[in-house]
Amino acid sequence: MIIPMVGVGTDVHAFEAGRECWVAGLHWPGETGLAGHSDGDVAAHAACDALFSAANLGDLGSNFGTDRPEWSGASGVALLTEAASRVRAAGFEIGNVSIQVIGVHPKIGKRRDEAQRTLTAAAGATVTVSGTTTDGLGLTGRAEGLAGIAVAMIYHR
Amino acid sequence: MIIPMVGVGTDVHAFEAGRECWVAGLHWPGETGLAGHSDGDVAAHAACDALFSAANLGDLGSNFGTDRPEWSGASGVALLTEAASRVRAAGFEIGNVSIQVIGVHPKIGKRRDEAQRTLTAAAGATVTVSGTTTDGLGLTGRAEGLAGIAVAMIYHR
Amino acid sequence: MIIPMVGVGTDVHAFEAGRECWVAGLHWPGETGLAGHSDGDVAAHAACDALFSAANLGDLGSNFGTDRPEWSGASGVALLTEAASRVRAAGFEIGNVSIQVIGVHPKIGKRRDEAQRTLTAAAGATVTVSGTTTDGLGLTGRAEGLAGIAVAMIYHR
Repeated sequence: MIIPMVGVGTDVHAFEAGRECWVAGLHWPGETGLAGHSDGDVAAHAACDALFSAANLGDLGSNFGTDRPEWSGASGVALLTEAASRVRAAGFEIGNVSIQVIGVHPKIGKRRDEAQRTLTAAAGATVTVSGTTTDGLGLTGRAEGLAGIAVAMIYHR
Repeated sequence: MIIPMVGVGTDVHAFEAGRECWVAGLHWPGETGLAGHSDGDVAAHAACDALFSAANLGDLGSNFGTDRPEWSGASGVALLTEAASRVRAAGFEIGNVSIQVIGVHPKIGKRRDEAQRTLTAAAGATVTVSGTTTDGLGLTGRAEGLAGIAVAMIYHR
Repeated sequence: MIIPMVGVGTDVHAFEAGRECWVAGLHWPGETGLAGHSDGDVAAHAACDALFSAANLGDLGSNFGTDRPEWSGASGVALLTEAASRVRAAGFEIGNVSIQVIGVHPKIGKRRDEAQRTLTAAAGATVTVSGTTTDGLGLTGRAEGLAGIAVAMIYHR
Protein backbone atom coordinates (compact mmCIF):
# COMPACT_ATOMS: atom_id res chain seq x y z
CA MET A 1 0.00 0.00 0.00
CA ILE A 2 1.63 3.21 -1.16
CA ILE A 3 0.42 6.47 0.28
CA PRO A 4 2.16 9.34 -1.40
CA MET A 5 2.89 12.75 0.01
CA VAL A 6 2.75 15.99 -1.95
CA GLY A 7 4.66 19.23 -1.53
CA VAL A 8 4.54 22.72 -3.02
CA GLY A 9 7.22 25.37 -3.45
CA THR A 10 7.53 28.74 -5.16
CA ASP A 11 10.36 31.17 -5.76
CA VAL A 12 10.87 34.63 -7.25
CA HIS A 13 14.06 36.43 -8.20
CA ALA A 14 14.50 39.88 -9.71
CA PHE A 15 16.14 40.32 -13.09
CA GLU A 16 19.51 42.05 -12.84
CA ALA A 17 21.33 43.38 -15.88
CA GLY A 18 24.83 42.02 -16.30
CA ARG A 19 24.21 38.73 -14.52
CA GLU A 20 24.48 35.41 -16.30
CA CYS A 21 21.08 33.77 -16.69
CA TRP A 22 20.56 30.33 -15.14
CA VAL A 23 17.04 28.93 -15.20
CA ALA A 24 15.82 25.34 -15.00
CA GLY A 25 19.35 24.06 -14.66
CA LEU A 26 20.53 25.65 -17.92
CA HIS A 27 22.71 28.58 -18.84
CA TRP A 28 20.87 30.95 -21.18
CA PRO A 29 23.48 33.02 -23.03
CA GLY A 30 22.34 36.52 -23.93
CA GLU A 31 19.38 36.46 -21.53
CA THR A 32 19.21 38.80 -18.53
CA GLY A 33 20.17 36.99 -15.34
CA LEU A 34 18.60 36.92 -11.91
CA ALA A 35 19.74 38.59 -8.69
CA GLY A 36 20.73 36.73 -5.57
CA HIS A 37 23.57 35.08 -3.70
CA SER A 38 22.82 31.93 -5.69
CA ASP A 39 22.34 31.66 -9.46
CA GLY A 40 18.71 32.70 -8.97
CA ASP A 41 17.34 29.56 -10.61
CA VAL A 42 13.71 29.91 -9.57
CA ALA A 43 12.78 26.59 -11.20
CA ALA A 44 15.33 24.53 -9.29
CA HIS A 45 14.67 26.44 -6.07
CA ALA A 46 10.91 25.88 -6.26
CA ALA A 47 11.55 22.18 -6.89
CA CYS A 48 13.81 21.96 -3.82
CA ASP A 49 11.19 23.59 -1.61
CA ALA A 50 8.44 21.29 -2.94
CA LEU A 51 10.59 18.24 -2.14
CA PHE A 52 11.62 19.46 1.29
CA SER A 53 8.02 20.31 2.16
CA ALA A 54 6.67 16.92 1.04
CA ALA A 55 9.33 15.16 3.13
CA ASN A 56 8.99 17.41 6.21
CA LEU A 57 12.60 18.51 5.88
CA GLY A 58 12.18 22.26 6.25
CA ASP A 59 12.87 24.57 3.34
CA LEU A 60 15.64 26.14 1.26
CA GLY A 61 16.46 28.55 4.05
CA SER A 62 16.86 25.92 6.76
CA ASN A 63 18.80 23.56 4.48
CA PHE A 64 20.96 25.94 2.46
CA GLY A 65 20.48 29.35 4.09
CA THR A 66 22.83 32.03 5.31
CA ASP A 67 23.99 29.96 8.28
CA ARG A 68 25.10 27.21 5.87
CA PRO A 69 27.85 29.14 4.05
CA GLU A 70 29.10 26.01 2.27
CA TRP A 71 26.00 26.29 0.03
CA SER A 72 26.38 30.01 -0.70
CA GLY A 73 26.47 30.54 -4.43
CA ALA A 74 25.62 26.93 -5.23
CA SER A 75 23.92 26.30 -8.55
CA GLY A 76 20.29 25.30 -8.80
CA VAL A 77 21.36 21.91 -10.08
CA ALA A 78 23.67 21.39 -7.10
CA LEU A 79 20.90 22.37 -4.69
CA LEU A 80 18.35 20.08 -6.35
CA THR A 81 20.83 17.19 -6.34
CA GLU A 82 21.44 17.65 -2.63
CA ALA A 83 17.74 18.17 -1.85
CA ALA A 84 16.86 14.90 -3.58
CA SER A 85 19.65 13.15 -1.71
CA ARG A 86 18.33 14.41 1.63
CA VAL A 87 14.79 13.32 0.77
CA ARG A 88 16.02 9.82 -0.01
CA ALA A 89 18.16 9.75 3.13
CA ALA A 90 14.95 10.44 5.08
CA GLY A 91 13.44 7.23 3.69
CA PHE A 92 11.48 8.39 0.65
CA GLU A 93 11.40 7.69 -3.05
CA ILE A 94 10.68 10.62 -5.36
CA GLY A 95 7.79 10.03 -7.72
CA ASN A 96 7.96 13.15 -9.84
CA VAL A 97 8.39 16.91 -9.73
CA SER A 98 6.39 19.32 -11.90
CA ILE A 99 7.72 22.86 -12.35
CA GLN A 100 6.26 25.86 -14.11
CA VAL A 101 8.38 28.92 -14.94
CA ILE A 102 6.33 32.12 -15.02
CA GLY A 103 7.64 35.15 -16.88
CA VAL A 104 8.53 36.72 -20.17
CA HIS A 105 12.01 35.29 -20.63
CA PRO A 106 13.79 32.99 -21.10
CA LYS A 107 11.41 30.94 -23.23
CA ILE A 108 11.40 27.51 -21.62
CA GLY A 109 9.75 25.83 -24.59
CA LYS A 110 12.81 26.38 -26.74
CA ARG A 111 14.95 24.17 -24.51
CA ARG A 112 12.43 22.11 -22.56
CA ASP A 113 13.98 18.70 -23.32
CA GLU A 114 17.42 19.85 -22.26
CA ALA A 115 16.07 21.44 -19.07
CA GLN A 116 14.07 18.35 -18.19
CA ARG A 117 17.05 16.04 -18.78
CA THR A 118 19.27 18.20 -16.60
CA LEU A 119 16.84 18.52 -13.70
CA THR A 120 15.75 14.87 -13.96
CA ALA A 121 19.37 13.80 -13.66
CA ALA A 122 19.79 16.07 -10.64
CA ALA A 123 16.69 14.79 -8.85
CA GLY A 124 17.03 11.17 -9.92
CA ALA A 125 13.32 11.21 -10.80
CA THR A 126 11.16 12.69 -13.54
CA VAL A 127 11.14 16.47 -13.48
CA THR A 128 8.99 18.29 -16.02
CA VAL A 129 9.24 21.99 -16.84
CA SER A 130 6.60 24.17 -18.44
CA GLY A 131 6.48 27.88 -19.14
CA THR A 132 3.78 30.50 -19.04
CA THR A 133 3.30 34.26 -18.93
CA THR A 134 0.97 36.62 -17.08
CA ASP A 135 -0.29 38.74 -19.96
CA GLY A 136 1.86 41.77 -19.13
CA LEU A 137 0.56 41.97 -15.57
CA GLY A 138 2.25 41.79 -12.20
CA LEU A 139 5.92 41.45 -11.41
CA THR A 140 6.37 38.70 -13.95
CA GLY A 141 4.40 40.44 -16.69
CA ARG A 142 6.41 43.65 -16.30
CA ALA A 143 9.63 41.58 -16.42
CA GLU A 144 10.71 42.79 -12.98
CA GLY A 145 11.43 39.20 -12.10
CA LEU A 146 10.87 35.55 -12.84
CA ALA A 147 8.79 33.14 -10.78
CA GLY A 148 8.83 29.40 -10.38
CA ILE A 149 6.23 27.09 -8.88
CA ALA A 150 6.60 23.37 -8.29
CA VAL A 151 4.77 20.41 -6.86
CA ALA A 152 6.45 17.16 -5.88
CA MET A 153 5.15 13.68 -5.14
CA ILE A 154 7.16 11.37 -2.91
CA TYR A 155 6.36 8.13 -1.11
CA HIS A 156 7.82 5.98 1.66
CA ARG A 157 10.32 3.44 0.44
CA MET B 1 0.85 -0.79 -7.09
CA ILE B 2 -0.22 2.63 -8.22
CA ILE B 3 2.29 5.44 -8.14
CA PRO B 4 0.63 8.68 -9.07
CA MET B 5 2.19 11.70 -10.69
CA VAL B 6 1.29 15.29 -9.89
CA GLY B 7 1.40 18.40 -12.01
CA VAL B 8 0.94 22.12 -11.49
CA GLY B 9 -0.17 24.90 -13.83
CA THR B 10 -1.05 28.57 -13.55
CA ASP B 11 -2.44 31.16 -15.94
CA VAL B 12 -3.22 34.87 -15.94
CA HIS B 13 -5.21 36.94 -18.43
CA ALA B 14 -5.95 40.65 -18.36
CA PHE B 15 -9.53 41.90 -18.19
CA GLU B 16 -10.61 43.63 -21.39
CA ALA B 17 -13.78 45.67 -21.63
CA GLY B 18 -16.14 44.57 -24.36
CA ARG B 19 -15.03 40.95 -24.40
CA GLU B 20 -17.38 38.14 -23.50
CA CYS B 21 -16.39 36.50 -20.22
CA TRP B 22 -15.56 32.79 -20.22
CA VAL B 23 -14.19 31.32 -17.01
CA ALA B 24 -14.17 27.74 -15.72
CA GLY B 25 -15.88 26.55 -18.87
CA LEU B 26 -18.88 28.86 -18.44
CA HIS B 27 -20.12 31.99 -20.15
CA TRP B 28 -20.69 34.77 -17.61
CA PRO B 29 -23.11 37.30 -19.17
CA GLY B 30 -22.55 40.88 -18.04
CA GLU B 31 -19.09 40.17 -16.62
CA THR B 32 -15.96 41.76 -18.11
CA GLY B 33 -14.11 39.31 -20.33
CA LEU B 34 -10.46 38.42 -20.63
CA ALA B 35 -7.94 39.34 -23.32
CA GLY B 36 -6.19 36.85 -25.54
CA HIS B 37 -6.35 34.91 -28.76
CA SER B 38 -8.34 32.28 -26.88
CA ASP B 39 -11.33 32.85 -24.63
CA GLY B 40 -8.91 33.64 -21.78
CA ASP B 41 -10.32 30.92 -19.55
CA VAL B 42 -7.58 30.91 -16.90
CA ALA B 43 -9.19 28.01 -15.03
CA ALA B 44 -9.27 25.67 -18.00
CA HIS B 45 -5.81 26.77 -19.15
CA ALA B 46 -4.25 26.14 -15.73
CA ALA B 47 -5.88 22.70 -15.68
CA CYS B 48 -4.44 21.87 -19.12
CA ASP B 49 -0.95 22.87 -18.02
CA ALA B 50 -1.21 20.85 -14.81
CA LEU B 51 -2.24 17.76 -16.81
CA PHE B 52 0.44 18.21 -19.47
CA SER B 53 3.10 18.72 -16.82
CA ALA B 54 2.10 15.64 -14.82
CA ALA B 55 2.20 13.55 -17.99
CA ASN B 56 5.43 15.02 -19.38
CA LEU B 57 3.62 16.29 -22.46
CA GLY B 58 4.94 19.85 -22.60
CA ASP B 59 2.62 22.77 -21.99
CA LEU B 60 -0.15 24.86 -23.51
CA GLY B 61 2.31 26.61 -25.80
CA SER B 62 3.84 23.44 -27.20
CA ASN B 63 0.47 21.72 -27.61
CA PHE B 64 -1.79 24.56 -28.72
CA GLY B 65 0.54 27.50 -29.40
CA THR B 66 0.98 29.90 -32.22
CA ASP B 67 2.50 27.27 -34.50
CA ARG B 68 -0.66 25.17 -34.08
CA PRO B 69 -3.15 27.54 -35.75
CA GLU B 70 -5.92 24.95 -35.71
CA TRP B 71 -6.25 25.61 -31.95
CA SER B 72 -6.26 29.41 -32.25
CA GLY B 73 -9.36 30.78 -30.56
CA ALA B 74 -10.38 27.40 -29.14
CA SER B 75 -12.47 27.48 -25.99
CA GLY B 76 -11.12 26.46 -22.63
CA VAL B 77 -13.44 23.48 -22.66
CA ALA B 78 -12.17 22.38 -26.07
CA LEU B 79 -8.57 22.69 -24.91
CA LEU B 80 -9.20 20.76 -21.69
CA THR B 81 -11.03 18.03 -23.61
CA GLU B 82 -8.09 17.66 -25.96
CA ALA B 83 -5.50 17.86 -23.18
CA ALA B 84 -7.22 15.04 -21.30
CA SER B 85 -7.38 13.00 -24.50
CA ARG B 86 -3.64 13.44 -25.06
CA VAL B 87 -2.88 12.47 -21.46
CA ARG B 88 -4.90 9.27 -21.88
CA ALA B 89 -3.29 8.55 -25.24
CA ALA B 90 0.07 8.68 -23.44
CA GLY B 91 -1.05 5.82 -21.20
CA PHE B 92 -2.41 7.58 -18.12
CA GLU B 93 -5.64 7.73 -16.21
CA ILE B 94 -6.62 11.07 -14.71
CA GLY B 95 -7.33 10.94 -10.99
CA ASN B 96 -8.53 14.47 -10.37
CA VAL B 97 -7.86 18.11 -11.12
CA SER B 98 -8.21 20.88 -8.52
CA ILE B 99 -8.49 24.47 -9.75
CA GLN B 100 -8.62 27.76 -7.88
CA VAL B 101 -9.71 30.98 -9.59
CA ILE B 102 -8.10 34.05 -8.02
CA GLY B 103 -9.67 37.46 -8.54
CA VAL B 104 -12.56 39.78 -7.84
CA HIS B 105 -14.97 38.59 -10.54
CA PRO B 106 -16.71 36.51 -11.66
CA LYS B 107 -17.77 34.92 -8.38
CA ILE B 108 -17.14 31.21 -8.86
CA GLY B 109 -19.21 30.21 -5.86
CA LYS B 110 -22.40 31.33 -7.53
CA ARG B 111 -22.03 28.74 -10.28
CA ARG B 112 -19.60 26.20 -8.85
CA ASP B 113 -21.71 23.11 -9.54
CA GLU B 114 -22.25 24.10 -13.17
CA ALA B 115 -18.55 24.88 -13.65
CA GLN B 116 -17.49 21.61 -12.09
CA ARG B 117 -19.95 19.59 -14.19
CA THR B 118 -18.73 21.29 -17.37
CA LEU B 119 -15.02 20.85 -16.69
CA THR B 120 -15.46 17.33 -15.30
CA ALA B 121 -17.21 16.34 -18.51
CA ALA B 122 -14.39 17.87 -20.53
CA ALA B 123 -11.63 16.12 -18.58
CA GLY B 124 -13.47 12.84 -18.07
CA ALA B 125 -12.40 12.97 -14.42
CA THR B 126 -13.34 14.94 -11.34
CA VAL B 127 -12.48 18.62 -11.67
CA THR B 128 -13.19 20.89 -8.70
CA VAL B 129 -13.22 24.68 -8.83
CA SER B 130 -12.82 27.08 -5.94
CA GLY B 131 -12.55 30.85 -5.82
CA THR B 132 -10.60 33.31 -3.72
CA THR B 133 -9.47 36.92 -3.67
CA THR B 134 -6.28 38.73 -2.73
CA ASP B 135 -7.64 41.41 -0.39
CA GLY B 136 -7.34 44.22 -2.94
CA LEU B 137 -3.64 43.57 -3.54
CA GLY B 138 -1.68 42.71 -6.64
CA LEU B 139 -2.88 42.31 -10.22
CA THR B 140 -5.83 40.22 -9.13
CA GLY B 141 -6.79 42.48 -6.23
CA ARG B 142 -6.78 45.57 -8.45
CA ALA B 143 -8.89 43.70 -11.02
CA GLU B 144 -6.27 44.14 -13.73
CA GLY B 145 -6.62 40.45 -14.47
CA LEU B 146 -7.76 37.05 -13.33
CA ALA B 147 -5.50 34.16 -12.31
CA GLY B 148 -5.99 30.43 -12.23
CA ILE B 149 -3.93 27.77 -10.49
CA ALA B 150 -4.39 24.02 -10.80
CA VAL B 151 -2.91 20.75 -9.64
CA ALA B 152 -3.60 17.42 -11.31
CA MET B 153 -3.08 13.82 -10.25
CA ILE B 154 -2.68 11.14 -12.88
CA TYR B 155 -1.45 7.55 -12.81
CA HIS B 156 -0.28 4.91 -15.22
CA ARG B 157 -3.06 2.77 -16.60
CA MET C 1 -5.74 0.03 -4.37
CA ILE C 2 -5.42 3.59 -3.17
CA ILE C 3 -5.95 6.38 -5.62
CA PRO C 4 -5.24 9.69 -3.98
CA MET C 5 -6.72 13.05 -4.80
CA VAL C 6 -4.86 16.34 -4.71
CA GLY C 7 -6.05 19.85 -4.04
CA VAL C 8 -4.60 23.35 -4.20
CA GLY C 9 -5.43 26.54 -2.34
CA THR C 10 -3.99 30.02 -2.01
CA ASP C 11 -4.79 33.04 0.14
CA VAL C 12 -3.62 36.63 0.52
CA HIS C 13 -4.30 39.14 3.27
CA ALA C 14 -3.09 42.72 3.59
CA PHE C 15 -0.93 43.78 6.51
CA GLU C 16 -2.75 46.16 8.84
CA ALA C 17 -0.96 48.10 11.55
CA GLY C 18 -2.34 47.56 15.02
CA ARG C 19 -3.70 44.07 14.39
CA GLU C 20 -2.37 41.04 16.22
CA CYS C 21 -0.42 38.76 13.91
CA TRP C 22 -1.63 35.19 13.50
CA VAL C 23 0.10 33.07 10.87
CA ALA C 24 0.42 29.30 10.55
CA GLY C 25 -1.65 28.78 13.65
CA LEU C 26 0.66 30.84 15.85
CA HIS C 27 0.47 34.23 17.51
CA TRP C 28 3.50 36.36 16.55
CA PRO C 29 3.92 39.09 19.20
CA GLY C 30 5.37 42.31 17.84
CA GLU C 31 4.71 41.43 14.20
CA THR C 32 2.26 43.42 12.09
CA GLY C 33 -1.05 41.58 11.75
CA LEU C 34 -3.27 40.91 8.77
CA ALA C 35 -6.58 42.50 7.82
CA GLY C 36 -9.84 40.63 7.57
CA HIS C 37 -12.91 39.48 9.46
CA SER C 38 -10.91 36.42 10.49
CA ASP C 39 -7.40 36.36 11.94
CA GLY C 40 -6.03 36.56 8.40
CA ASP C 41 -4.01 33.36 8.78
CA VAL C 42 -3.14 32.85 5.11
CA ALA C 43 -1.37 29.55 5.83
CA ALA C 44 -4.35 27.94 7.54
CA HIS C 45 -6.77 29.38 4.99
CA ALA C 46 -4.77 28.05 2.04
CA ALA C 47 -4.66 24.64 3.72
CA CYS C 48 -8.45 24.65 4.20
CA ASP C 49 -9.02 25.50 0.54
CA ALA C 50 -6.61 22.77 -0.61
CA LEU C 51 -8.45 20.20 1.51
CA PHE C 52 -11.92 21.32 0.43
CA SER C 53 -10.86 21.31 -3.22
CA ALA C 54 -9.35 17.82 -3.05
CA ALA C 55 -12.52 16.51 -1.44
CA ASN C 56 -14.97 18.36 -3.70
CA LEU C 57 -16.43 20.23 -0.74
CA GLY C 58 -16.42 23.77 -2.11
CA ASP C 59 -14.15 26.40 -0.64
CA LEU C 60 -13.64 28.69 2.34
CA GLY C 61 -16.39 31.00 1.13
CA SER C 62 -19.02 28.28 0.77
CA ASN C 63 -18.08 26.59 4.05
CA PHE C 64 -17.32 29.52 6.32
CA GLY C 65 -18.38 32.61 4.36
CA THR C 66 -20.48 35.63 5.16
CA ASP C 67 -23.71 33.61 5.17
CA ARG C 68 -22.25 31.35 7.87
CA PRO C 69 -21.95 33.98 10.64
CA GLU C 70 -21.11 31.34 13.28
CA TRP C 71 -17.63 31.13 11.67
CA SER C 72 -17.06 34.90 11.50
CA GLY C 73 -13.83 35.73 13.27
CA ALA C 74 -12.85 32.10 13.76
CA SER C 75 -9.13 31.41 14.05
CA GLY C 76 -7.17 29.69 11.32
CA VAL C 77 -6.69 26.72 13.61
CA ALA C 78 -10.43 26.47 14.25
CA LEU C 79 -11.16 26.63 10.52
CA LEU C 80 -8.54 23.99 9.68
CA THR C 81 -9.84 21.71 12.43
CA GLU C 82 -13.36 21.99 11.05
CA ALA C 83 -12.23 21.63 7.42
CA ALA C 84 -10.39 18.40 8.25
CA SER C 85 -13.44 17.14 10.10
CA ARG C 86 -15.66 17.81 7.08
CA VAL C 87 -13.19 16.08 4.75
CA ARG C 88 -13.24 12.99 6.97
CA ALA C 89 -17.03 13.09 7.27
CA ALA C 90 -17.13 12.93 3.46
CA GLY C 91 -15.28 9.60 3.56
CA PHE C 92 -11.64 10.57 3.13
CA GLU C 93 -8.40 10.19 5.02
CA ILE C 94 -5.94 13.06 4.87
CA GLY C 95 -2.48 12.09 3.69
CA ASN C 96 -0.63 15.33 4.15
CA VAL C 97 -0.81 19.08 3.62
CA SER C 98 2.14 21.17 2.43
CA ILE C 99 1.99 24.94 2.97
CA GLN C 100 4.33 27.70 1.90
CA VAL C 101 4.10 31.20 3.41
CA ILE C 102 5.30 33.88 1.00
CA GLY C 103 6.38 37.27 2.31
CA VAL C 104 8.85 39.27 4.32
CA HIS C 105 7.51 38.64 7.82
CA PRO C 106 6.95 36.82 10.06
CA LYS C 107 9.93 34.49 9.52
CA ILE C 108 8.43 31.01 9.51
CA GLY C 109 11.76 29.28 9.94
CA LYS C 110 12.15 30.66 13.45
CA ARG C 111 9.08 28.77 14.67
CA ARG C 112 8.57 26.05 12.07
CA ASP C 113 8.34 23.13 14.50
CA GLU C 114 5.78 24.91 16.64
CA ALA C 115 3.72 25.89 13.60
CA GLN C 116 3.82 22.38 12.19
CA ARG C 117 2.81 20.82 15.51
CA THR C 118 -0.12 23.23 15.84
CA LEU C 119 -1.44 22.77 12.33
CA THR C 120 -0.80 19.01 12.35
CA ALA C 121 -2.87 18.72 15.51
CA ALA C 122 -5.63 20.76 13.88
CA ALA C 123 -5.70 18.70 10.69
CA GLY C 124 -5.07 15.33 12.31
CA ALA C 125 -2.49 14.66 9.60
CA THR C 126 1.00 15.85 8.76
CA VAL C 127 1.09 19.54 7.87
CA THR C 128 4.42 21.06 6.86
CA VAL C 129 5.13 24.79 6.63
CA SER C 130 7.89 26.47 4.68
CA GLY C 131 8.67 30.12 4.07
CA THR C 132 10.00 32.11 1.15
CA THR C 133 10.26 35.65 -0.14
CA THR C 134 9.87 37.31 -3.54
CA ASP C 135 13.06 39.36 -3.69
CA GLY C 136 11.36 42.68 -2.98
CA LEU C 137 8.92 42.30 -5.84
CA GLY C 138 5.14 42.21 -6.00
CA LEU C 139 2.64 42.59 -3.20
CA THR C 140 4.56 40.20 -0.97
CA GLY C 141 7.96 41.74 -1.71
CA ARG C 142 6.73 45.24 -0.91
CA ALA C 143 5.20 43.92 2.32
CA GLU C 144 1.71 45.04 1.31
CA GLY C 145 0.47 41.61 2.28
CA LEU C 146 1.28 38.01 3.02
CA ALA C 147 0.42 35.04 0.79
CA GLY C 148 -0.06 31.36 1.48
CA ILE C 149 -0.18 28.46 -0.92
CA ALA C 150 -0.99 24.86 -0.05
CA VAL C 151 -1.44 21.47 -1.63
CA ALA C 152 -3.21 18.57 0.06
CA MET C 153 -3.33 14.85 -0.61
CA ILE C 154 -6.33 12.84 0.54
CA TYR C 155 -7.63 9.37 -0.28
CA HIS C 156 -10.80 7.37 0.12
CA ARG C 157 -11.06 5.52 3.39
